[in-house]
Amino acid sequence: MNSTLALVPLAKAYRLLNHGPTVLVSAAHQGRRNVMAAAWAMAVDFEPGKVAVVLDKQTWTRELLEAEGSFVLNVPCAAQVDLVQTVGNTTGRERDKFAAYGIETLVAEQVTAPLVAGCVAWLECRLLPEAHNEERYDLFLGEVVAARADTRVFRDGHWDFRGQDSLRTLHHVAGGHFLVIGDGLQGRMLPPRA
Amino acid sequence: MNSTLALVPLAKAYRLLNHGPTVLVSAAHQGRRNVMAAAWAMAVDFEPGKVAVVLDKQTWTRELLEAEGSFVLNVPCAAQVDLVQTVGNTTGRERDKFAAYGIETLVAEQVTAPLVAGCVAWLECRLLPEAHNEERYDLFLGEVVAARADTRVFRDGHWDFRGQDSLRTLHHVAGGHFLVIGDGLQGRMLPPRA
Repeated sequence: MNSTLALVPLAKAYRLLNHGPTVLVSAAHQGRRNVMAAAWAMAVDFEPGKVAVVLDKQTWTRELLEAEGSFVLNVPCAAQVDLVQTVGNTTGRERDKFAAYGIETLVAEQVTAPLVAGCVAWLECRLLPEAHNEERYDLFLGEVVAARADTRVFRDGHWDFRGQDSLRTLHHVAGGHFLVIGDGLQGRMLPPRA
Repeated sequence: MNSTLALVPLAKAYRLLNHGPTVLVSAAHQGRRNVMAAAWAMAVDFEPGKVAVVLDKQTWTRELLEAEGSFVLNVPCAAQVDLVQTVGNTTGRERDKFAAYGIETLVAEQVTAPLVAGCVAWLECRLLPEAHNEERYDLFLGEVVAARADTRVFRDGHWDFRGQDSLRTLHHVAGGHFLVIGDGLQGRMLPPRA
């Protein structure tokens, strides 16, 4: 394990998704594995941390995730933009994407799905089955059971990407066009009018 | 209406949320109105466009939204960071936030909720009632019935914030600390290994 990786307390795992990055969803079942890109993912609860992610019915990742009952949301970074575009536009049904594209993995703590190496955060999740949401909206819910992040950019519960441009998170718009996250800004309370 | 605002085709409305900005949720019912901040919002479908947003049971916006059956997701920008922090940490039950903080509004096309002026995009939504999600996960779904954006930063279906730092979208982490969206990066397909 890369020495810059550290566990994130579960109560703060939502902060890994709070700023809306595009994620890679990985899943594995009975020796087969897959990874896909998803821009439609978000936190839905603090503690226990929960997430929501939209997975099209055609995706193989969805089948693996449903069969195994767990998955990982990997948060990729600018250095991986071509990887994100590639796994978001190919299928792993016929050929293992990890082998085909030389994707290195790390072993998860709590689930069978592989972690994509080189990402800046990982949320290991247990599926919370909700058949109506899955069938009608392609919407999957999960409870976060372990979380890690790269301490070069996530420390003390906050992201700080200054001086680490290649580790900035990716935010997909459409057609392989991403926006990269920028720097911080602190909001202050306005006084109400008298 | 500000002359830089333009309608966004409904099939492309998801792109207003795809990069994961923090939003302001506004709602109105029987002459009362409110606005709150929400980092947990995302698109869930293309056409008809659908959105999901998490609204705590204590919020008054939630009550108005449920009573009226519609709401607006406003996408605020860096120039509004104090406004976002303020409406995200105050209640409108006792005092109208729009009056208290001098928040200017625009009239929506399809719903009663006010649009927050100065934002860079707006998605007018009809609530898709899903009692189980609302009660168990505080999760609300909506169908986008009208969308507009500021053409200074959203044109031809794509965001481009270059030269418009004050109009960059906000991405909340925690405690009033926001990240501001950066510039673009194009992903390219990797060739598979032989």
